[in-house]
Amino acid sequence: MARQLELNPDRLFPSDPTMRGIARSLYAEISGLPIVSPHGHTDPTWFADNQNWTDATTLLLAPDHYVYRMLYSQGIALDDLAIPHRGGVPATDPRKAWRLFADNYRLFRGTPSRMWLDHVFADVFGIDVALEGATADLYFDTINEKLASEAFRPRALFDRFRIDFLATTEGPQDDLSAHHRIHRSGWGGRVVTTYRPDAVIDVEHENFAASMATFAEVTGEDVYSWTGYLAAHRKRRADFRAAGATATDHGHPTAQTANLSTVEAEALFAKVTKGAWTLDDAELFRAQMLTEMAAMSVEDGMVMQIHPGAFRNHNAGLFASHGRDKGADIPSRTDYVRALKPLLDRFGTSTELSIILFTLDESVYARELAPLAGHYPCLKLGPSWWFHDSPEGMRRFRETTTETAGFYNTVGFNDDTRAFLSIPARHDVARRVDCSFLARLVAEHRIEDWEAVELAHELTNGLVRKAYRIDTPLSAARAA
Amino acid sequence: MARQLELNPDRLFPSDPTMRGIARSLYAEISGLPIVSPHGHTDPTWFADNQNWTDATTLLLAPDHYVYRMLYSQGIALDDLAIPHRGGVPATDPRKAWRLFADNYRLFRGTPSRMWLDHVFADVFGIDVALEGATADLYFDTINEKLASEAFRPRALFDRFRIDFLATTEGPQDDLSAHHRIHRSGWGGRVVTTYRPDAVIDVEHENFAASMATFAEVTGEDVYSWTGYLAAHRKRRADFRAAGATATDHGHPTAQTANLSTVEAEALFAKVTKGAWTLDDAELFRAQMLTEMAAMSVEDGMVMQIHPGAFRNHNAGLFASHGRDKGADIPSRTDYVRALKPLLDRFGTSTELSIILFTLDESVYARELAPLAGHYPCLKLGPSWWFHDSPEGMRRFRETTTETAGFYNTVGFNDDTRAFLSIPARHDVARRVDCSFLARLVAEHRIEDWEAVELAHELTNGLVRKAYRIDTPLSAARAA
Amino acid sequence: MARQLELNPDRLFPSDPTMRGIARSLYAEISGLPIVSPHGHTDPTWFADNQNWTDATTLLLAPDHYVYRMLYSQGIALDDLAIPHRGGVPATDPRKAWRLFADNYRLFRGTPSRMWLDHVFADVFGIDVALEGATADLYFDTINEKLASEAFRPRALFDRFRIDFLATTEGPQDDLSAHHRIHRSGWGGRVVTTYRPDAVIDVEHENFAASMATFAEVTGEDVYSWTGYLAAHRKRRADFRAAGATATDHGHPTAQTANLSTVEAEALFAKVTKGAWTLDDAELFRAQMLTEMAAMSVEDGMVMQIHPGAFRNHNAGLFASHGRDKGADIPSRTDYVRALKPLLDRFGTSTELSIILFTLDESVYARELAPLAGHYPCLKLGPSWWFHDSPEGMRRFRETTTETAGFYNTVGFNDDTRAFLSIPARHDVARRVDCSFLARLVAEHRIEDWEAVELAHELTNGLVRKAYRIDTPLSAARAA
Repeated sequence: MARQLELNPDRLFPSDPTMRGIARSLYAEISGLPIVSPHGHTDPTWFADNQNWTDATTLLLAPDHYVYRMLYSQGIALDDLAIPHRGGVPATDPRKAWRLFADNYRLFRGTPSRMWLDHVFADVFGIDVALEGATADLYFDTINEKLASEAFRPRALFDRFRIDFLATTEGPQDDLSAHHRIHRSGWGGRVVTTYRPDAVIDVEHENFAASMATFAEVTGEDVYSWTGYLAAHRKRRADFRAAGATATDHGHPTAQTANLSTVEAEALFAKVTKGAWTLDDAELFRAQMLTEMAAMSVEDGMVMQIHPGAFRNHNAGLFASHGRDKGADIPSRTDYVRALKPLLDRFGTSTELSIILFTLDESVYARELAPLAGHYPCLKLGPSWWFHDSPEGMRRFRETTTETAGFYNTVGFNDDTRAFLSIPARHDVARRVDCSFLARLVAEHRIEDWEAVELAHELTNGLVRKAYRIDTPLSAARAA
Repeated sequence: MARQLELNPDRLFPSDPTMRGIARSLYAEISGLPIVSPHGHTDPTWFADNQNWTDATTLLLAPDHYVYRMLYSQGIALDDLAIPHRGGVPATDPRKAWRLFADNYRLFRGTPSRMWLDHVFADVFGIDVALEGATADLYFDTINEKLASEAFRPRALFDRFRIDFLATTEGPQDDLSAHHRIHRSGWGGRVVTTYRPDAVIDVEHENFAASMATFAEVTGEDVYSWTGYLAAHRKRRADFRAAGATATDHGHPTAQTANLSTVEAEALFAKVTKGAWTLDDAELFRAQMLTEMAAMSVEDGMVMQIHPGAFRNHNAGLFASHGRDKGADIPSRTDYVRALKPLLDRFGTSTELSIILFTLDESVYARELAPLAGHYPCLKLGPSWWFHDSPEGMRRFRETTTETAGFYNTVGFNDDTRAFLSIPARHDVARRVDCSFLARLVAEHRIEDWEAVELAHELTNGLVRKAYRIDTPLSAARAA
Repeated sequence: MARQLELNPDRLFPSDPTMRGIARSLYAEISGLPIVSPHGHTDPTWFADNQNWTDATTLLLAPDHYVYRMLYSQGIALDDLAIPHRGGVPATDPRKAWRLFADNYRLFRGTPSRMWLDHVFADVFGIDVALEGATADLYFDTINEKLASEAFRPRALFDRFRIDFLATTEGPQDDLSAHHRIHRSGWGGRVVTTYRPDAVIDVEHENFAASMATFAEVTGEDVYSWTGYLAAHRKRRADFRAAGATATDHGHPTAQTANLSTVEAEALFAKVTKGAWTLDDAELFRAQMLTEMAAMSVEDGMVMQIHPGAFRNHNAGLFASHGRDKGADIPSRTDYVRALKPLLDRFGTSTELSIILFTLDESVYARELAPLAGHYPCLKLGPSWWFHDSPEGMRRFRETTTETAGFYNTVGFNDDTRAFLSIPARHDVARRVDCSFLARLVAEHRIEDWEAVELAHELTNGLVRKAYRIDTPLSAARAA
């Protein structure tokens, strides 16, 4: 007989009855609030075209590197999981891939993937038995059947999930046509884009030249001159704002910034675009561009997000066979105090600029990020990110940042996901962990109960709306 | 109707009833013990002159960078808070500044500032309503009225706070006249100084030349020769010991030490005093001076405190407008294992020398500081410091140092504050957190209950008195 | 009247009654399982010769650097504790040394040494009063008397401790005669060796030349040629496998690896063996040798253990007087992401190779090690190690690695000890802490109760047997 799958209503709340009681009350206050998702990687064509997804493996397994990295780490071949490689999608039967996943579901015990997936299975698909080898086919068939229904089209789920705001992420080469179709469709869902210009900033990226060519084409600017290049960014930022963007995003290897003179910046630009650059030049160019982006944000009001610290494509063999974004990105030590100084020397006292800082290096929470955000008016702390986007990671984030930066220099939750069906699960985890943290503060008489209620609302809704300027959309023309 | 302000007697104790019960009993044992404050930054003229303070804003808001850094981080101008700038004190109405603070008091939720301030409001001033916009004037008037009374003069509060020992911090240029007046006054309070020679050691400081000139004048030594410079330090250390000092303090950017030959040291000294130095020279000179100070401590018995790791005046714009110590000091990564080796190679096996190490980089607690202090007889661990001087910070300190260094290589609590009225609050937080930590060890049967009682006394009183050599004052002449 | 010594059956379990109940049930499931000790430093001659140990001081105090480092840190002279120095064993009366230890036993409050020692005293020796000055002689006499009995010979204790597998560690110069005697004796205890070739890899070691000479002699290879040197390693690995080894171990200062061409490696080898090397050469040679060892592991199936990050013999004065391994090894910051890349570029996708990574730098758990082990099939996480082999250290290990690496990329517990009598105590602590961690996950509804039972078995027994290939012993000839 298959084991039951049931989401316990008290999950993630502290075991201590006093704290659990407080956490429950706080959660009751905010669990029904709509979802604000200001940073993520869902595909806007889903909402533009509103087509049904095909099957469980293609939707839930093949695109989720959180999931298949764990299976791969235990010696399971990616081909057997139907994960696309450089040559295309392997000819693996999706059902067989799903069975292999189900057979190894125990590997996820204690991980956030397990909590998210169970939430999706139970709450989105209404399955009431646990996933294991014996139930693999039941799962596969149930999920596929539902995915084929009206109620499981992207827009229907968007409404069912009570999503109030959803930001996707696009590059400067993107024509934003999916977003334009969404907006023209008359559908009421608020799906916006985010300007992520890494592809035309990171000269180490293997597609840099191709991206620059498209950048030139899309903008009609001479992107190979420093002035034209900056003008092209300004144009695209305006395009993105017209498509609802309120923010930019920057995924650099480090948080390094620079503040070169125009002459120096021009010379550096000439060097990196002519291909005769060193790794130091590439780093300096990324550093300078963060400061240029900050300058444009002061002009046009877009919020900057900086996501540094991933060593991308660490597994050389896997990169050769499967390419980028295959679960082989590894965090590394990241400095902020020295790295951000050039940018802050220029804009640090601005109350117009808003930069949201993320990290993959938790040792900086208490040491660097909370002190920086607890001082500079232009800096805010993004939530615990990626490998730390988990109950323990979120708890450590609150425990190590709150005392120095307070709650009000944080910006609510980001789901940062391409796994659309898991969005409610992820926000639910964050709400439960935040309520548990607040419950401890109340139980230990460090804040009053009514303050915890106010804070629960702020952490769920208030801070994210303010930080991402969601309720005061920027004029596309502001830069003009 | 205004919300009530009441300090819960169980605040900061664990929620679990077993642990809370143990914590309560332990706290009952030590909550009434006098305060020993071996490291801080109160102004000795307060106790010398015993004048009334003027008003809430000038006493509680304007000098407290913990408080106004948070307000500033949320876009509030320092001028509106009456914070002094390079041009003097802004012409801001202190009452208006106080109201602005009160309006934004929610920002401190979850921070230690909030706990310390509420303790001061409730316990020192007897206020029973919470601070918010509506009660701002009530607070301002109540506080000012009390501050004008006899009972709120510095010496009266010193006695009321049951302070047994209070160390201030002065530089080598200081004539110590305030301390001399205190001692001559016949008042029984034990207020002593601490020798902090950074001003004549850090050649990067903008006032280095001026400080050296005063150093020469005060000591009558040829401080521009290496021998005369060292002799001047010896003289001043004797002066400070005569004014009750038992310790020195060193606030360097890093923990780097050096052990140069006399010839090398003389050459370096010549370079840095002639102004033709590089940043590396400046660092090496600070490094060498830590070792010289250790050598003098072996001679004269003064305890060394090393407080490294702050990136001072990180906000260039604010430094330009407001100068030093305006809440813009940011911790950064700090190494101890390699940095201290030159000094330890010379004095590491000494049982005479005593060095108390502090850090702003918590990642070194378990990795570097506890192993060092758990081995070297000359090293002890200072308590969690500055940004980490908070309930969570103190908890992490105990959790990450005790297993390797034990309790007996730690030195009790430091309030490290210039906010005199908050001293009881800060010691109370430390006592509560330590009792809570001990309560967990007892509840988990890791130590016996009677051991926890002994330890509570040691952590409150025994260790600090021993580590700072409080009960065996050094002879001023010992060095001779 | 002496205080009682009694091991509380609930020790180390959470105070919260719900969690404690779950922890108790889980512990009841696995507390009786045999001990698997795949990494340690006991002396194989104990089991070969089965002679009685002499006395408490020689067995429990003098060899245990965890214990005497703490006493030394409080100013107690090593000579007074009968700790051997370079000149031999000091002429200290063992009873006097034991009394000094007993007088200072309070120093260990809150440390794992205290828990281990009390377990040994109560459980192994049946003592029921606490150790303190007043009971020092009682302890000394009781322990010595028991040590002289049949029941306290090494093999009898091995059986009593229910040890199923015990690995010692030997160098490439070792003739393994003790292991051969054990195997020839017909005794049923499974004691195996581990290949730790540091002595012929670390050219900075003062005995490198002597070790190489023995290496040549033992293997009959021309170890001064690169080919001969590698052949000698292969021979010794086969010898070690014949003596039961399933693993190698590498205790380098860093985790640096390299992947030189054969020509480069030969040139480097020539340099370091001729003595004309720099510190960088020494580091590069160690780095290259990790990759060579990985290559041999791919051939012969031995599991690699990498234990980096100790700054050895930090105390120069103590090293001069007492030599190596005297409690003066201090952890330091350790990088894995960049350091391991050369090795992983070559073998990263292998599912044959198995490398177990350890660290003394906890800041890498969540940031580097869990992401690496949660991706690479050849990487597993060793348990919390040395300074972190303690209740808090183990808890932090689980809290910071499980969410990213899961449980199944970890390898159970290592006692890593030379203190044979403490082996049951150490495994018991690990089992209790793991059950407590699992209890929290169950109480917070993050895993099901039946999953926790499965996991408790895996963490105690399943994972270690698999990771160390204990049940599929390698053929000595596999490399041939």
